[in-house]
Amino acid sequence: MRIDLNCDMGESFAAYILGEDDQIMRWITSANIACGFHAGDPMVMERTVALACRHQVAVGAHPGYPDLLGFGRRHLDTFPGEIKNYLLYQMGALSAFAGAHGVRLQHVKPHGALYNLAARDEPAAREVIAAVKAFDPEVVLVTLAGSLCAEMALAAGLRVAREVFPDRAYLSNGQLAPRNLSDAVVHDPDEIRARVVKLVTTGAMTSIDGQEILLKADTLCIHGDTPGACKLGEVIREALAASGVEVAPMASVCVR
Amino acid sequence: MRIDLNCDMGESFAAYILGEDDQIMRWITSANIACGFHAGDPMVMERTVALACRHQVAVGAHPGYPDLLGFGRRHLDTFPGEIKNYLLYQMGALSAFAGAHGVRLQHVKPHGALYNLAARDEPAAREVIAAVKAFDPEVVLVTLAGSLCAEMALAAGLRVAREVFPDRAYLSNGQLAPRNLSDAVVHDPDEIRARVVKLVTTGAMTSIDGQEILLKADTLCIHGDTPGACKLGEVIREALAASGVEVAPMASVCVR
Amino acid sequence: MRIDLNCDMGESFAAYILGEDDQIMRWITSANIACGFHAGDPMVMERTVALACRHQVAVGAHPGYPDLLGFGRRHLDTFPGEIKNYLLYQMGALSAFAGAHGVRLQHVKPHGALYNLAARDEPAAREVIAAVKAFDPEVVLVTLAGSLCAEMALAAGLRVAREVFPDRAYLSNGQLAPRNLSDAVVHDPDEIRARVVKLVTTGAMTSIDGQEILLKADTLCIHGDTPGACKLGEVIREALAASGVEVAPMASVCVR
Amino acid sequence: MRIDLNCDMGESFAAYILGEDDQIMRWITSANIACGFHAGDPMVMERTVALACRHQVAVGAHPGYPDLLGFGRRHLDTFPGEIKNYLLYQMGALSAFAGAHGVRLQHVKPHGALYNLAARDEPAAREVIAAVKAFDPEVVLVTLAGSLCAEMALAAGLRVAREVFPDRAYLSNGQLAPRNLSDAVVHDPDEIRARVVKLVTTGAMTSIDGQEILLKADTLCIHGDTPGACKLGEVIREALAASGVEVAPMASVCVR
Repeated sequence: MRIDLNCDMGESFAAYILGEDDQIMRWITSANIACGFHAGDPMVMERTVALACRHQVAVGAHPGYPDLLGFGRRHLDTFPGEIKNYLLYQMGALSAFAGAHGVRLQHVKPHGALYNLAARDEPAAREVIAAVKAFDPEVVLVTLAGSLCAEMALAAGLRVAREVFPDRAYLSNGQLAPRNLSDAVVHDPDEIRARVVKLVTTGAMTSIDGQEILLKADTLCIHGDTPGACKLGEVIREALAASGVEVAPMASVCVR
Repeated sequence: MRIDLNCDMGESFAAYILGEDDQIMRWITSANIACGFHAGDPMVMERTVALACRHQVAVGAHPGYPDLLGFGRRHLDTFPGEIKNYLLYQMGALSAFAGAHGVRLQHVKPHGALYNLAARDEPAAREVIAAVKAFDPEVVLVTLAGSLCAEMALAAGLRVAREVFPDRAYLSNGQLAPRNLSDAVVHDPDEIRARVVKLVTTGAMTSIDGQEILLKADTLCIHGDTPGACKLGEVIREALAASGVEVAPMASVCVR
Repeated sequence: MRIDLNCDMGESFAAYILGEDDQIMRWITSANIACGFHAGDPMVMERTVALACRHQVAVGAHPGYPDLLGFGRRHLDTFPGEIKNYLLYQMGALSAFAGAHGVRLQHVKPHGALYNLAARDEPAAREVIAAVKAFDPEVVLVTLAGSLCAEMALAAGLRVAREVFPDRAYLSNGQLAPRNLSDAVVHDPDEIRARVVKLVTTGAMTSIDGQEILLKADTLCIHGDTPGACKLGEVIREALAASGVEVAPMASVCVR
Repeated sequence: MRIDLNCDMGESFAAYILGEDDQIMRWITSANIACGFHAGDPMVMERTVALACRHQVAVGAHPGYPDLLGFGRRHLDTFPGEIKNYLLYQMGALSAFAGAHGVRLQHVKPHGALYNLAARDEPAAREVIAAVKAFDPEVVLVTLAGSLCAEMALAAGLRVAREVFPDRAYLSNGQLAPRNLSDAVVHDPDEIRARVVKLVTTGAMTSIDGQEILLKADTLCIHGDTPGACKLGEVIREALAASGVEVAPMASVCVR
């Protein structure tokens, strides 16, 4: 039994500090680092890669829409080729900092509105997959467990890490429960811990309407902007250790 | 006798078209491609790398200050580390497109105000050199012939292409004549052609005040925004061929 | 019989020149000036307002999405209040240049994807109308003839200029024919001239499927990026003059 | 005896929160609101103007260089006219939000590197003054007490608020002590309070080398990014009240 823990990192920008990267980096195994489009800048990227390397956390790109003003959370219509080229640009930019620290990009996880679009929209998923293939086919693509994008990426021969959000409720069909449902977000750390242990040791989760569902998870997302994210990371690490689950970077957990 | 011809390329942005890249690409051997800070964007970078590859022109990065509004032509004070990280970011971004086309970055040439600063300012030159070393020590650094930066880069063990501007006058000490001097810019294509042939075949140039000076040139810059730049490229190529000079990408011309 | 001729102006940015503002300004009566979000910058805005004033052309704001990379042509999801505040910001910015030249903003015309959204989407139209009311209820809102936005703005008591595109075909229900239909765009200057004269003198237009439809037009848009836009402006002016139609800024043509 | 208290406000951007505007707004009389170039965005500007109005604090523009990445703290070379047009643009943008709340811009205070440049550089000061005159000659210009800009603005007939920084040491010639001197910044709240009371009630301050100097102060800057800025505001207000000094927006304190 083995699982990866990932978290969005490096989302500060210029004079603006966001997140508690120093604290959270201790508990995760894969860092998704913003690349300057929705957050992050060259100085922040350098610092964040250095921090990840000090903690032996694997480095990945977290590319978003070119929309700092919307923090990459707003859908933006794109013309054909734009998503692919936005990803290539950002993966390349981050890989220069990784290379300067002697490591390679382990993975890529699209951010925000782009993540959501790619999960369900075929043309967007196709561009994301094309970008990874063109950049480096060994890079792991992080995508929503059970999504169209996960299927397409596996069919295309990519390495895929299927992501589950332990603080989010799921529908009985295995899809994420929309945020407008009450109970869509789980706040209680004890409950989150229990969900994580059950999911990783049995592959099952209780859906929002009480059914047992099976979910293939290669990586769990710790939301860095949740209050208490750092404490949550510690709690999950301890619970997994106590359950005999190995925590490891997604390159050693993902499927192909 | 061998020389490289370089030109700034890919300076369009979004809906804005700048330069006649399609025409000029035929006559050059090394393309300096803008990386999205002072000009260029992911779509333009992809198109420009593709164009260079079709013409078997070597691909290089042309990083600038993060100042699209000033086209990278205005000096911007930076804090320590910013120049290095701006270069890493931009070289990385461009290299993703190069890699997608199966080529590597041959060279890097800072743009505009950053080029001028690095040529004469020790801390700036040190950051530029550190960026190239950290990114890939085989990448050729293009720098002003006779500049402090050229010296420092050679002392640091980098591969260096010393650049001469055939349409610019030089002082008798080997420095570029400032643009505010009359006759600082040579406009006559016949004169430019004669200067090029003399420089490449004899290593000498007539300075603005009539003296013969020696200049080590590994690469000549064709200014893409000069009216008639494309014709000038053709004229220079023909004159060099007629003089028995081989034109080749700077990787095979530069010094170390 | 009286009509306004408007054209998008000031869409250059930094080193990038777009459009032939100097030429087209002679033939129009209202200039829609980009405000720095999708195009334009403070220097361009100053120059464009000065140019309009020299030609006694009325000055209006042409605000767009904050998406220079997409030239404001891509839909961007926004959160409540963003459209209103984007418009206020841009109208304010342009009005400073207008004020410096002793004139006031005559009108506002949303640009590109924002224009299209506001024409048909009630929440977007509501924010546009709220922005105009908050900024200055005497400013004329330019909106697609026959659109939801035109109706809502009139109901809200705004001054409205209903816009018709003489080089675009219309459906028999009075809506713009989508661009993916063949014949959606009229290219022949003679045909455009004939359509203009008929529309302004009779209020009627032949739809794309051959029916006669009635359209209330207060202002006609000359597309500045059409090849020959300048010649077209001249042709339309002459044809209107020959037909006894007065051409005047939209403030003296619009309805309330 | 009367003095204005100003503070930089509205420096958040998008998802990034900076400063404790809600707290500090209670203690000041004039708010310098960022305008989207070095900080701030349309949503933040709207919220900040609304907040100022709720507290009956006068609204002013705080325009900076177009350098969000450098937070306007880095010098940027500009071409003639750029500073003037950057200011016009930003004053206009902010005034739209002010107008929507029924107030006018009381003042303008250039930010960061632009403030420092304008204080001592004649061409920059000239552009700042020209911008204020073109925008609205009744707007008060905030400028460093004892600076070239203060002199030039008074000579040009502008309304001027001479600004003193109570937490900064001054040289015996009346100039700000450079930050690289030890003791250039005063940290002790009690000392700051004493300096404020003495300055406002007697016009004198003890310089960094122990001499008594005279300083004409119309407005005191509370640094919002100082830890404890909010507490400091309260302390200063109480001390001034106890000393019989009236605190009032700078429009009623400034000179002409």
